[in-house]
Amino acid sequence: MLALAGIPLGLSFRFLDPAPDAPAGEIGELIVGAYDDPALLDRLADGAAAVTYEFENVPVGAAQRVGAVPAAAALEASQDRLVEKRLFRRLGIPTARIDDEVEAFPAILKTRRLGYDGKGQRLLSGPWTGAVPGHVLEERVAFDRELSLLAVRGRNGETRFWPLVENVHEDGILRSSRAPALDAPQAAAEEYGRRLLDQLGYVGVLALELFEVGGRLLANELAPRVHNSGHWTIEGAATSQFENHLRAILGLPLGSTASRPALLRNLIGTAPAAHAVLAVPGAHLHLYGKQPRPGRKLGHVTLVEPTPERERALESALADARPR
Amino acid sequence: MLALAGIPLGLSFRFLDPAPDAPAGEIGELIVGAYDDPALLDRLADGAAAVTYEFENVPVGAAQRVGAVPAAAALEASQDRLVEKRLFRRLGIPTARIDDEVEAFPAILKTRRLGYDGKGQRLLSGPWTGAVPGHVLEERVAFDRELSLLAVRGRNGETRFWPLVENVHEDGILRSSRAPALDAPQAAAEEYGRRLLDQLGYVGVLALELFEVGGRLLANELAPRVHNSGHWTIEGAATSQFENHLRAILGLPLGSTASRPALLRNLIGTAPAAHAVLAVPGAHLHLYGKQPRPGRKLGHVTLVEPTPERERALESALADARPR
Repeated sequence: MLALAGIPLGLSFRFLDPAPDAPAGEIGELIVGAYDDPALLDRLADGAAAVTYEFENVPVGAAQRVGAVPAAAALEASQDRLVEKRLFRRLGIPTARIDDEVEAFPAILKTRRLGYDGKGQRLLSGPWTGAVPGHVLEERVAFDRELSLLAVRGRNGETRFWPLVENVHEDGILRSSRAPALDAPQAAAEEYGRRLLDQLGYVGVLALELFEVGGRLLANELAPRVHNSGHWTIEGAATSQFENHLRAILGLPLGSTASRPALLRNLIGTAPAAHAVLAVPGAHLHLYGKQPRPGRKLGHVTLVEPTPERERALESALADARPR
Repeated sequence: MLALAGIPLGLSFRFLDPAPDAPAGEIGELIVGAYDDPALLDRLADGAAAVTYEFENVPVGAAQRVGAVPAAAALEASQDRLVEKRLFRRLGIPTARIDDEVEAFPAILKTRRLGYDGKGQRLLSGPWTGAVPGHVLEERVAFDRELSLLAVRGRNGETRFWPLVENVHEDGILRSSRAPALDAPQAAAEEYGRRLLDQLGYVGVLALELFEVGGRLLANELAPRVHNSGHWTIEGAATSQFENHLRAILGLPLGSTASRPALLRNLIGTAPAAHAVLAVPGAHLHLYGKQPRPGRKLGHVTLVEPTPERERALESALADARPR
């Protein structure tokens, strides 16, 4: 989706991916190999105006070798839940209670590193008796809802935000995002987002995942990249997160984040028939060209100007989804 | 632009183009060779769900060999100005006076075939003394403005129209298109468009170029393909002409043509600096990856929700355009 946004800007793309069938190979040069292979990294970066990533488990050393934007600080924080929590707290951004602060059990014992889509988490019935190496214990938050803030910061420090998004997860995987989240604390979220972006000297799109609890926001995690909960911006915003990420890392002026209501619905494990989705007024289909696999995100549908009727029609269209 | 619209639908693309540096090669398999090479045509069509064209001087025989959609009738009419005029007239669609009907001189002597961007035309001071082989004489129309109607018809005969567009040509090349054309005779244009589409049993996007003279419409020519004056639909319409063309030829449901105001500005011969264009609120840049050449369309900018201020800002940004 980054490349699809960048080709009209006159850009061309080269990708590094361990998977030989990575869909990006359809729209650019694909280098197949490990993210930390120095020779491949050098080939990737050779002559490039900018190098970026859209997966936060890229090794920090690899990102540094190619001079990737956004720079390493955000990547490091996003790869370690404890470093991340400490960053939030240093900036006065509230988080859930962790480790010895935890009062309510069962609590969630999370691996500090390499968690993704709910993986690497288990419940600890407690009580806490000292740190488990490589893990952080988090108190479960009885949140009212999950929100995410999509933000972009340019090389000159200019910062823009899209409207807060309300997210619904299922089995730890994002199922749907609704923008804008109704009656959401936009100003507070932007204040937290701005602190993060400025502290990190960040360039590019960043997503901040938040819990809303009684009108108060707790930061859950940050993603130093374009984010699934922002895919609706392709049709729903004046400038998509993909185009603004490219504009930012290339030092181009940022585009407007003015938005209209949109509902994003992920296609997980199975894909619907195209004709069924395209018959739904306001529905835009995005398939990623990936092989079906349980739990895998195969694509998404964005419903612009969603109405209850359109949403019902979309759910009907998705009801016959199967591996295809 | 067809491929960029189709990749999110899960489609992949193969192209046939005589130019080895055709930009389409960036986003699909490029077969380099003549449009009428039977072996290459067979390779092009091998396993394809549909074959189409976006250049109306493709040989009719080539289109037939690969079973291209839209089918040959519209292509034949668009390749011969006399056949085209006769088709319009048979359907009760008014045109300029031709050949022995011409009353006012100088009139325009046009080649019947292979005219493009104003090429193949010259003034005849008259009077008409009989047909010039391979040419048609057209009376010059003192039109109030040039309009085009973008239409799409599905395999099931369903037809949709985008709002009429007002076009400005310079040296025979489209310079800008404004949608919607203000106070335009939409109903009359759609009636003519519908007659054409139904008569031809057309499937796909078709553009009908019209002159408006004292509130009356004269058909000038038809283009059996996505059309430059419809490029604004990428950002300006709920469904772009490119996506609806693909939907039509693949037998998928057509998407809404609901539109918002947009101004399309072609980049001819030279291209502006990206940073200058992207600083203009509402501007969307589309570069085609072509080598600069005088008179060549290198890209376009779409300005959504244009205001006099935005238009002035865009023209300033374009003022420093040069070959790049």
